[in-house]
Amino acid sequence: MIDLAKRVHDHTWKIDPIVRSLLDTDFYKLLMAQTVEKRHRDVTVTFSLINRSKDIPLAELIDEGELREQLDHIRTLTLTRGEVTWLRGNTFYGIQRMFTPAFIDWFEGFQMPPYHLERIGDQYELTFEGPWPDVMMWEVPALAVLMELRSRAVLRHMGKLELQVLYARAMTRVWEKIEALRQLPDLRIADFGTRRRHSFLWQDWCNAAMIEGLGERFLGTSNCLIALRREVEAIGTNAHELPMVYAALSGNNHELAASPYRVLEDWHQDYDGNLRVMLPDTFGTKTFLERAPDWLREWTGIRIDSGDPATGAEYAINWWKSKGEDPREKLIIFSDGLDVDKITELYNQFYGRVKLGFGWGTLLTNDFRDLTEENALAPFSLVCKAIRANGQPTVKLSDNEAKAMGPDDEIARYKRVFDLKKQTADMPIV
Amino acid sequence: MIDLAKRVHDHTWKIDPIVRSLLDTDFYKLLMAQTVEKRHRDVTVTFSLINRSKDIPLAELIDEGELREQLDHIRTLTLTRGEVTWLRGNTFYGIQRMFTPAFIDWFEGFQMPPYHLERIGDQYELTFEGPWPDVMMWEVPALAVLMELRSRAVLRHMGKLELQVLYARAMTRVWEKIEALRQLPDLRIADFGTRRRHSFLWQDWCNAAMIEGLGERFLGTSNCLIALRREVEAIGTNAHELPMVYAALSGNNHELAASPYRVLEDWHQDYDGNLRVMLPDTFGTKTFLERAPDWLREWTGIRIDSGDPATGAEYAINWWKSKGEDPREKLIIFSDGLDVDKITELYNQFYGRVKLGFGWGTLLTNDFRDLTEENALAPFSLVCKAIRANGQPTVKLSDNEAKAMGPDDEIARYKRVFDLKKQTADMPIV
Repeated sequence: MIDLAKRVHDHTWKIDPIVRSLLDTDFYKLLMAQTVEKRHRDVTVTFSLINRSKDIPLAELIDEGELREQLDHIRTLTLTRGEVTWLRGNTFYGIQRMFTPAFIDWFEGFQMPPYHLERIGDQYELTFEGPWPDVMMWEVPALAVLMELRSRAVLRHMGKLELQVLYARAMTRVWEKIEALRQLPDLRIADFGTRRRHSFLWQDWCNAAMIEGLGERFLGTSNCLIALRREVEAIGTNAHELPMVYAALSGNNHELAASPYRVLEDWHQDYDGNLRVMLPDTFGTKTFLERAPDWLREWTGIRIDSGDPATGAEYAINWWKSKGEDPREKLIIFSDGLDVDKITELYNQFYGRVKLGFGWGTLLTNDFRDLTEENALAPFSLVCKAIRANGQPTVKLSDNEAKAMGPDDEIARYKRVFDLKKQTADMPIV
Repeated sequence: MIDLAKRVHDHTWKIDPIVRSLLDTDFYKLLMAQTVEKRHRDVTVTFSLINRSKDIPLAELIDEGELREQLDHIRTLTLTRGEVTWLRGNTFYGIQRMFTPAFIDWFEGFQMPPYHLERIGDQYELTFEGPWPDVMMWEVPALAVLMELRSRAVLRHMGKLELQVLYARAMTRVWEKIEALRQLPDLRIADFGTRRRHSFLWQDWCNAAMIEGLGERFLGTSNCLIALRREVEAIGTNAHELPMVYAALSGNNHELAASPYRVLEDWHQDYDGNLRVMLPDTFGTKTFLERAPDWLREWTGIRIDSGDPATGAEYAINWWKSKGEDPREKLIIFSDGLDVDKITELYNQFYGRVKLGFGWGTLLTNDFRDLTEENALAPFSLVCKAIRANGQPTVKLSDNEAKAMGPDDEIARYKRVFDLKKQTADMPIV
């Protein structure tokens, strides 16, 4: 049993590492890395930190030396024997040998590639460049380090008792959320909160609370290390990174339009079952589904990660119906901006009409809102994205204007190719 | 910094002592013991545990062996050198050398006298008999042991995470109470919660929270050990025990009627200043004040420990006025059944009219109401009282029918002598 307040207060280790294992990352990173390592090991990508919350002056809050120590520490990590055993021997979604011997060999020899860190004004420029399978592994640990260093920067000035009360309140809040979720009898929910977590220990505690409070309703966690240690399911499928890079590598607009489906063709070959969950919003959900090849209707489900989630879900349900599929056999995973009220609302709206899953992120593992002076621990929007592939810029549109990224001229071109007048928050029901 | 949940869960010591020091008792016990040891060391008294909450089957909840281990452990305790130094060297209410060398000599050689423990149905009969100054020292530790063994009995079946959530909720609750009390700018409040505390560590945490949250508004604690360790004021004056025993020792009804004032005459000789606070309700506040000798009007204040507190306070104010005293120079200490709402209400009613002090007990150090299944940690009413003195039964009437105790015929006699038609919850305003 961990005394969170004490651990935060003491900081007895030399650098008190934030990321202690290469498995302290999201499961879908490993699934994607396996595909990428097999198919695209020669692609060179650049990943970059992007702080969407410009009002959070990360370089003012976080000491550059401390940040470098944390990142350098991550570069020393290699898989332990027990971790390799878990990857080899565990079943994921009931499937044995999810990872090929070739991928495990690669991962056993893996160390994080170099990073580039520079302070620009009150923000950090943090980029990673190199072979795609190597560089992509930085995303989650880099975010986790920045999030936790920011937490520590705020907590450093608090007294012992203040810290105890802070964690007591945060625990009480999480537990009350879990008690509210118990009202939903067939809920299926997972922790997706690694990248925006308050801290590793806190994410781990939130998982312990979900296990104890929700029992079978808790599906597991996206965090491999926590899944291993707490013996719960590792959860995840794929992310925007794949269509973004595939799109950037397209030779022309025709190839660009086809790229999101090439991603899923490859995925279809590499994985099946619960891993066949499409993420349709990278360049707008509406066009994606309208142009989808026929075989995609057989996929297990869809993940809704931007735009109004109910609108997106209704759209998907109607799409399945139009293809002659029974939506009650299909899975919808909601994973954007969830908290108890939204989960309950979506559950009530869709329960019985489709299979439902919830990927609960920031407001599970980092809800310290209004618990400190000036709300200094309010969560904020930090991402780490592929911004270039083989020298070409990447683009993301999504169903939410605020989540769009890429150079303006490329965004304009993508909008033409994907027939987006504007991002599809107003997506019409088919 | 203590991880309460962990300590509760682990129990690594042999018996995990509940009372670790002879100073883990209320300060007024020492003040009273000094008077008793000087004046009445030949009086033989019997103290007895009385569980007013018959629905709490203490003997079902608490193992007799464990209870004996705890009581036996207390009998091994003697003052440490540092504790003696504190008693000798500390100032109490600004006064040096509060304790005489004779008393400190006695206390340095002191060990707890034997106890008699017997299970009767689902309750324990726990009594202590012997010289008054020796036996009286059992009251607070005996209660603390029973309260904490009951807490442990309930907590023993809880998992680690359940315990963490329980303490997180209880901490959040205490802290929110303290935040509410911060609204009262000139509040003066003390911890009076030793005897009914959830546990020693919890009482200590509550004190840390009061220190941090209330600053100067927190006067200190009745618990000597916590006062010593946390370097806050030890708080207290005197209790019903004195008038009860003095009354029992009275030769006739005339002496009986005079006995409460003889207590205060002795006290007046032994102490002054903030220690001259009368406790008027032992045999009914109304008669006590009506018959009070003139010199009592000069005392510093009054403690209101039963009956409706606002009624009692108004009664005292009017009594001072009728004696030509300015109530604004007088102190009223409320110490019965307080929680934030009641404190706020009394503060608002009396602030500016008298000096106010609050002695906050059970609902500071043991408010785990509704935090466990079946409310198994709800506080309950356990006392340890002098029931006989030199073979004579004691009586307490108080301003609250439920708190009366003693043999029926003696209660009837006392009511005649103290002119009580009934307990004076309906005490008229003078």
